Amino acid sequence: MVRIPVLAEITQANTMLANALRKELARHGILALNLIASPGAGKTTLIERTVSALSDELRFAVIEGDLTTSLDAERIVAAGAPAVQINTGGGCHLEARMIHSALDQLSLDGVDVLIIENIGNLICPTGWDLGEDAKVVVASLPEGDDKPLKYPGAFATAQALVINKVDLEPYLSAKVEKLRENALRINGDLAVFAVSCLTGEGLENWLDWIRDQLARKRSVLARESGCG
Amino acid sequence: MVRIPVLAEITQANTMLANALRKELARHGILALNLIASPGAGKTTLIERTVSALSDELRFAVIEGDLTTSLDAERIVAAGAPAVQINTGGGCHLEARMIHSALDQLSLDGVDVLIIENIGNLICPTGWDLGEDAKVVVASLPEGDDKPLKYPGAFATAQALVINKVDLEPYLSAKVEKLRENALRINGDLAVFAVSCLTGEGLENWLDWIRDQLARKRSVLARESGCG
Repeated sequence: MVRIPVLAEITQANTMLANALRKELARHGILALNLIASPGAGKTTLIERTVSALSDELRFAVIEGDLTTSLDAERIVAAGAPAVQINTGGGCHLEARMIHSALDQLSLDGVDVLIIENIGNLICPTGWDLGEDAKVVVASLPEGDDKPLKYPGAFATAQALVINKVDLEPYLSAKVEKLRENALRINGDLAVFAVSCLTGEGLENWLDWIRDQLARKRSVLARESGCG
Repeated sequence: MVRIPVLAEITQANTMLANALRKELARHGILALNLIASPGAGKTTLIERTVSALSDELRFAVIEGDLTTSLDAERIVAAGAPAVQINTGGGCHLEARMIHSALDQLSLDGVDVLIIENIGNLICPTGWDLGEDAKVVVASLPEGDDKPLKYPGAFATAQALVINKVDLEPYLSAKVEKLRENALRINGDLAVFAVSCLTGEGLENWLDWIRDQLARKRSVLARESGCG
């Protein structure tokens, strides 16, 4: 009976801090995306491709979450975006306080899109608000097309799903259309993108979604400030 | 400061119950394996293949852990082994108390090997003893060959690693030998098996390992009871 109020206190503090982060990001007109996936679904590669493809029109900043190592942040910096690595030790998800600390090390001036790569875990990150505008689930086709049914929480709370590694479909029993169908059964509002970060297939629709989300956010912010 | 003693109390109780389970399983001469992996690495398919391949010589019982659905337990029953499904709701790992309850619904008489399929999560299950003889990590090649470096806890505490989906190697940048090498850097004592549950490639070595682990355990038990 001791645990429950303690846990409630932790998540309540997290939500309060996440809301403060959301305000701060809005003040800078920044779109923030929280990428959630199993280990190896291709989150880092998706970020690399996204940063490179939009380098002429948008400025990115990236926060990389990992148990250990700075391998992912090094890849992002090589792709051309400033990145901060958070190592949680053994911690299975990112929390708003970690994002708060990471932002001390990133200049937000001129940034258009902040991408947060959460810890590789399809369960625990789901319940922790990081101040993002949208959660994006990255699910790779080799993981199987039944994942939305077995890990519904991540899909239910996301705004978008990127199905990665679709180039492997000919060699798998899992099918893109089945994965899409199962995801939409859990959450009919999901924007779904079938892509291959290896071949580049399908990435243009995903990039359009980012452009569109940013434009919508800035339009809302402009209206709210009376400048629209 | 409140959280730490509470958490210590929970894991201590878990370890005590796990040790009691280990004794009970030893009394029946049962080898218990705790399978840990990311979502979609192929744990259930590996169990199906294992149960089918050894059906003439060993009797299996299976405990399936999932957030929700009984899809996996249904697959195991179809493959010919008694199975109990544990649904954790949103819980990210199995605990000894769940195994204790599940064993109430499984007859252990005549069983040789108990396989526990943990929740699809490469992080949280690592710290929870379920009374097993060995932890087995299942890592699929499409997840990437850097996984041992990025999720070292699971690999450090396991006795065996099954690298699954090696039939996809020609279509991936990840390589079996690199994954093996990275795993052995984290834990030089790992028994490593490169398999394809789709084609059956490499499964014979894995099956031999199970036979060998069971024989060793029974030999130790026989010596301890003075019957060896």
